[in-house]
Amino acid sequence: MRINMDRLNQRISELAQFGKNAQGGNNRVAFSDADIESRVYLSKIMEETGLEVHIDEAGNMLGRRHGRQADLPPILFGSHSDSVPNGGMFDGPAGILSAIECAEVLFENKISTLHPLEVVIFTNEEGGLTGSRAMIGELSTDALSERSFSGRTISEGINLVGGHSEKLESVVRKRGDITAFVEIHIEQGKILESEKINIGVVEGIVGINWWNVTIEGVANHAGTTPMNMRSDALLAAAHLIIAVNRHVTSIPGTQVGTVGKIKAEPGAPNVIPGQVAMNLELRDLSASKITSLFESIEHEAASIAERTSTRISFSPIDVAATPALTDPRLRTAISKAAEKLNLSYKLMPSGAGHDAQNIAKIAPIGMVFIPSVNGVSHSPKEFSHAKDIENGANVLLHTILEIDRSF
Amino acid sequence: MRINMDRLNQRISELAQFGKNAQGGNNRVAFSDADIESRVYLSKIMEETGLEVHIDEAGNMLGRRHGRQADLPPILFGSHSDSVPNGGMFDGPAGILSAIECAEVLFENKISTLHPLEVVIFTNEEGGLTGSRAMIGELSTDALSERSFSGRTISEGINLVGGHSEKLESVVRKRGDITAFVEIHIEQGKILESEKINIGVVEGIVGINWWNVTIEGVANHAGTTPMNMRSDALLAAAHLIIAVNRHVTSIPGTQVGTVGKIKAEPGAPNVIPGQVAMNLELRDLSASKITSLFESIEHEAASIAERTSTRISFSPIDVAATPALTDPRLRTAISKAAEKLNLSYKLMPSGAGHDAQNIAKIAPIGMVFIPSVNGVSHSPKEFSHAKDIENGANVLLHTILEIDRSF
Repeated sequence: MRINMDRLNQRISELAQFGKNAQGGNNRVAFSDADIESRVYLSKIMEETGLEVHIDEAGNMLGRRHGRQADLPPILFGSHSDSVPNGGMFDGPAGILSAIECAEVLFENKISTLHPLEVVIFTNEEGGLTGSRAMIGELSTDALSERSFSGRTISEGINLVGGHSEKLESVVRKRGDITAFVEIHIEQGKILESEKINIGVVEGIVGINWWNVTIEGVANHAGTTPMNMRSDALLAAAHLIIAVNRHVTSIPGTQVGTVGKIKAEPGAPNVIPGQVAMNLELRDLSASKITSLFESIEHEAASIAERTSTRISFSPIDVAATPALTDPRLRTAISKAAEKLNLSYKLMPSGAGHDAQNIAKIAPIGMVFIPSVNGVSHSPKEFSHAKDIENGANVLLHTILEIDRSF
Repeated sequence: MRINMDRLNQRISELAQFGKNAQGGNNRVAFSDADIESRVYLSKIMEETGLEVHIDEAGNMLGRRHGRQADLPPILFGSHSDSVPNGGMFDGPAGILSAIECAEVLFENKISTLHPLEVVIFTNEEGGLTGSRAMIGELSTDALSERSFSGRTISEGINLVGGHSEKLESVVRKRGDITAFVEIHIEQGKILESEKINIGVVEGIVGINWWNVTIEGVANHAGTTPMNMRSDALLAAAHLIIAVNRHVTSIPGTQVGTVGKIKAEPGAPNVIPGQVAMNLELRDLSASKITSLFESIEHEAASIAERTSTRISFSPIDVAATPALTDPRLRTAISKAAEKLNLSYKLMPSGAGHDAQNIAKIAPIGMVFIPSVNGVSHSPKEFSHAKDIENGANVLLHTILEIDRSF
């Protein structure tokens, strides 16, 4: 049994018309007019496949298909339909339209499953994983009052798409309410493409920690201050940036570390920088590896400070995401599906965040990655080949059947 | 014969009242009301000492004393009276008031000199060395139309203080018109203070070269791009900043090199920087040393670019100042004066710019530095001890007499 790629491809093109911009990209940010119009389209095609469509109180669109054993918790699969501002046409859509396609193929082939199936299109993934957060009971009142990319608050947006932001408790699911959740997504990196591998079996969604780094030296006249009398905050920053890179790359694994933001004060060509504010980000599947990496960086920072006559301090920023590991049985189910379809695959982390990381708190999760051309995403240049999407959708189809058999 | 420090100190305090601000600093920027009022005061005390005061067409204030041999070119000595915005009370004033004090002591002691003497207070030093530039015939029409710190254009300012910006050719002096120029100035660095030395015998005013440095990498997702697939422009910048420091400090000498300004794009904590714009400044007494230092930095930049998969390019900025060496006979005269007064002294470069660097193009120059507390200048915290100013003024006095004897 295989999915129908012509139909899937057609729907990817159709969905991309909603919010298409002059650059050929997608401005279908959550709660925008384009997003709202696209949801009418998505609801229609889900109903046409035979799914029973329902908008929950958080605005998540759900398409349900009965299982032979009605009291079993459903197998949930899907992704999101919203884009970032000036984003692409695959990040989200490749996942939800593959999920709808899988359901349709099962209807066409009259394959019933033991478990109920539930296709899910999560609300406002790009603006803070709103729908999946609500589903695990972690959408705070503060988050509801934040303004989304559309200009509307999250609360206004939820109500506009058919939810009820005052009644979010009704969407909360507990451990045991979902048999498994599987999301298929574009990789947004170029590992699969560069290694010529068809399918990424995601090991987990990495944890993310951010720190503000402040380096204090002494601002001074660049002409009258000899080299050996300087406390140059930018020179210390340079040593630290290199130390971050060295610590992150000197141990095996897929951990990443980045300094993306830097500001030197006073910032004049003829003044030795007296202060640098910069940013450190570490990501890995293991929270303890992040901690030990940070500790070794902090330790070296102390010696850099000593050497450069500066003071270096780190303060954690409250955006930390803890690592969310995928379920080993689901990794096996995805791998088996790939083998059955003669597709190459590899285990890999997801460096980006996904709704699956929230659902991981209440249910076993699995994620399937397909190659992104040049690793580009969140850009009109985002692209994935039809053949790769087809492979991913077929893997999803056979993974669902495997879950239905073995969970 | 010694200068009268009580009188000199009194005048330093009096001059500091013009443009004194709430922070205790001086806002006596050129052509401001405070500057104009202070010039009336300065003209008055110069006349009282017996000097013949004259404002030239560039607004320079000159106080002349006859020599026994009227046809000899004058010995010129002085500095400037203007400050930077929110500056201190010594940068400039210590020099001009010491110069006036020297003239007064010669009058009091009825010491005549062979050469005419000329005390000079240069116009708008802090805003572009305006007066000394005019004196060497290099004040351009473009410079005249630039707006000074006072809000007035240089041209308006010159006319306001008694000059004629249309007649600048009359102030131009040629080689042979000045026997020697000596300027006494606060060090604006902390070499003398930290080495406990009384007098700096300036070897020259360093040349300054600036470059814009552009580093191009590839901006990418900090989560989904493995460490070995990155072209991180900020990592390359860090290697380059360290290379600049290493090249500048790995050869003997007083050369300095600074990266004071940096900007990473896009500048988000979770995006690998795709571009860095930064700035390189090199200063030394030798233009060829600056050139060879730059060449070795540029050479290493090429290997950093290779190693980090980035492109690094340098483009010179048109603010280059060529080095201006002091005259060896004047260094000797200053050293002899210090020895005579039992003062310690050392040869040193001036890392900051001064009017003397312009006069060097047409006459032998000498410069005397006195210690700056903590090396601070261009700040209300700028301070030099009375004893150090006294030492410097006495050195100036005996240097003038030595020039008069030996030139």
